[in-house]
Amino acid sequence: MTITAVDVVDVRFPTSRSLDGSDAMNPDPDYSAAYVVLHADDGFEGHGFTFTIGRGNDLCCAAIETLSEYVVGADVHGPADLGDLYRRLTHDSQIRWLGPEKGVMHLAAAALVNAAWDLASRRAGLPLWKYLSSLTPEEVVACVDWRYLSDALTPEGALAILRAAEPGKAERVAEVEREGYPAYTTSPGWLGYDDEKVVRLAREAVAQGYQQIKLKVGADLEDDRRRFAAARAAVGPGIRIAVDANQRWDVDQAVAWVEALAEFDPWWIEEPTSPDDVLGHAAIRKRLAPIKVATGEHVHNRVMFKQLLQAGAIDFLQMDAARVAGVNENLAILLLAKHFGVPVCPHAGGVGLCELVCHLSMFDYTSVSATMDDRVIEYVDHLHEHFTAPTVIADGRYTAPTAPGFSAEMKRESLQRFAYPNGPEWRELA
Amino acid sequence: MTITAVDVVDVRFPTSRSLDGSDAMNPDPDYSAAYVVLHADDGFEGHGFTFTIGRGNDLCCAAIETLSEYVVGADVHGPADLGDLYRRLTHDSQIRWLGPEKGVMHLAAAALVNAAWDLASRRAGLPLWKYLSSLTPEEVVACVDWRYLSDALTPEGALAILRAAEPGKAERVAEVEREGYPAYTTSPGWLGYDDEKVVRLAREAVAQGYQQIKLKVGADLEDDRRRFAAARAAVGPGIRIAVDANQRWDVDQAVAWVEALAEFDPWWIEEPTSPDDVLGHAAIRKRLAPIKVATGEHVHNRVMFKQLLQAGAIDFLQMDAARVAGVNENLAILLLAKHFGVPVCPHAGGVGLCELVCHLSMFDYTSVSATMDDRVIEYVDHLHEHFTAPTVIADGRYTAPTAPGFSAEMKRESLQRFAYPNGPEWRELA
Repeated sequence: MTITAVDVVDVRFPTSRSLDGSDAMNPDPDYSAAYVVLHADDGFEGHGFTFTIGRGNDLCCAAIETLSEYVVGADVHGPADLGDLYRRLTHDSQIRWLGPEKGVMHLAAAALVNAAWDLASRRAGLPLWKYLSSLTPEEVVACVDWRYLSDALTPEGALAILRAAEPGKAERVAEVEREGYPAYTTSPGWLGYDDEKVVRLAREAVAQGYQQIKLKVGADLEDDRRRFAAARAAVGPGIRIAVDANQRWDVDQAVAWVEALAEFDPWWIEEPTSPDDVLGHAAIRKRLAPIKVATGEHVHNRVMFKQLLQAGAIDFLQMDAARVAGVNENLAILLLAKHFGVPVCPHAGGVGLCELVCHLSMFDYTSVSATMDDRVIEYVDHLHEHFTAPTVIADGRYTAPTAPGFSAEMKRESLQRFAYPNGPEWRELA
Repeated sequence: MTITAVDVVDVRFPTSRSLDGSDAMNPDPDYSAAYVVLHADDGFEGHGFTFTIGRGNDLCCAAIETLSEYVVGADVHGPADLGDLYRRLTHDSQIRWLGPEKGVMHLAAAALVNAAWDLASRRAGLPLWKYLSSLTPEEVVACVDWRYLSDALTPEGALAILRAAEPGKAERVAEVEREGYPAYTTSPGWLGYDDEKVVRLAREAVAQGYQQIKLKVGADLEDDRRRFAAARAAVGPGIRIAVDANQRWDVDQAVAWVEALAEFDPWWIEEPTSPDDVLGHAAIRKRLAPIKVATGEHVHNRVMFKQLLQAGAIDFLQMDAARVAGVNENLAILLLAKHFGVPVCPHAGGVGLCELVCHLSMFDYTSVSATMDDRVIEYVDHLHEHFTAPTVIADGRYTAPTAPGFSAEMKRESLQRFAYPNGPEWRELA
């Protein structure tokens, strides 16, 4: 039951042609994945990826190739093996120098760690969220790298959190299977869309059952005010509208800009400034209250999330499935968020991020926070057709995945067609 | 006067064989450089590199190749061009997603930015520190990316700092040429050295004129106490002994460990915990005072340094020449440090870091802080023989570089001999 080979594919979708995904910092993303398949000697495969927006995806693929030497020959049939593998992938001292635990190497580790969890949960015959829910508190805690966390949360503290969630877990698993998990949608709000499209898509979102939508802001204040006013008029006062600046501002600028949008009742301001700026987020949150602050999709590791929580810098923690080093590091982040009482509202969209991250939120509900209050998972209606077990939304909620694994597998024909630079789609464009 | 070609070399030195450079987190580094040569159409070259400790150096080289498209065709004959180039290298939105401004891509940007400054100062016929000292305050400020800094320091504030340092600048330039800049040495203290070697090298360091040495700690407390006691006995009470844990500890552990070393009078504790942990450093500093806290060699960008300063987390800022995106980002960091009144004591050692960083400290003295009080540049006596204009130490001080450029150029025969994996040195080892 060991991994015998690792395949890596550079797959990119030419999304920049339609301005899907456009925002104030990322005007022309080509949603991409550094995609990996682990082959095990018992015939099982593990699929995983990290998400990028185009250029540099090849470097993530090369980094995955470099890290593959820690994966080939590894056993991954249980959670203890997954903890060991994660630590090997993040703790090689020479490679650690390139971060530590950030940037291209960490994205590469995410792809491999996620693929290993896909493999393990396929072997167990369970969707990842149920596989995680089946682990004991001790097994979960052993998957985490506790280094640098103990001033905020110790393994013992984490065990207490997990044990407290044991009662009622079976009922919550059944509830997730029955009712899914709440979503919000960013589809109406891309910066490249004109007002008419924003209004039409916002109305459609409400008709589809969403209670929250999100608008991109930060390029031009008058445009933002006009679009926000139109969207608010379209959906009415009862629907939450979050706004997202994608790191565009400095601290003072963030406060002033969001104050100028306050009359339209923003639910949260997302990524107001640099994802590295813990103290900046804390200052913005303090000055903008009661408007809430959210960040996380670019927060690179558990040490940064720890500080965002310690500093009281965020109202919502936007975990990303493949920015930090995969499932193991996200277990730490879920536990930290619970400890500080901050709801996790994951980042998704891109390509495949919806497919992945819902597993983590569902596990959070069954086994960590045990609540869905104020929790929503981002949903964007892009590129799901490329996955073998795509996200299914019903009445504004994520349907619980049922297929064994982490829902990371892309269709073979998609991988071939969008392989970069030699797949037929890119050859036609070139 | 444009750049027409970029050569990249993966050069690695098998330093792990001698335990030079060994510490509690990095037991077996092979000091390496992702090395770049810019060729300009007027015949000038620009040399630069980023430093790694072995595996993954090839990924930095690949990242430099990716970024080269922003360099070929660029004009770099003046500081405004260097500001433009730096922004192009760090602001491509698709590549920025891989960080932002951290990890492999940022290390690659450092190599290219530094090479461009080498080229510009060679053209000017000046060593970099004098070239920087010749710029007007306005030119320096225009080289900085001010995004995310304005809550701590604005361009106007930076101009005021630089203008205040204009009087006396010529005298300070002359003083640097005459007397150099104070150094301290880490050569005695590598973790892989036995006590006898530590004592011998510590005594030699004092005999050579050093007023400060540094010991690696953090693997075993009793070893640390014994080595520190021996070193203190060897050099006496008047010599500063810094200790360096290379990120080994959590917060409580750092405090307890350093308290157990306090009787030997440590001057500073360096990298007590994760370089990402601003709040952790602040807590450690508060609890350990009056023992001082230093960090910086792994601090990945100006936003993190801003916060370390805002939080009162450090007594000494250990700038690295090639961890952040080269000269431009280090200009921001020098200005921030001056604004907060924190001395810059750069990280050096590795391969070529001494050669580079002394230029920045000398500029800091002539044009920013205008003081050498409590300022020292790290010095390690390794691998200087590979450079065409190696660091010269006299009586425990860096001698001012006189050759035009940034002192980054390695000898051609060294680049060939240590090219990885096909240079003769590595072929012999394999």
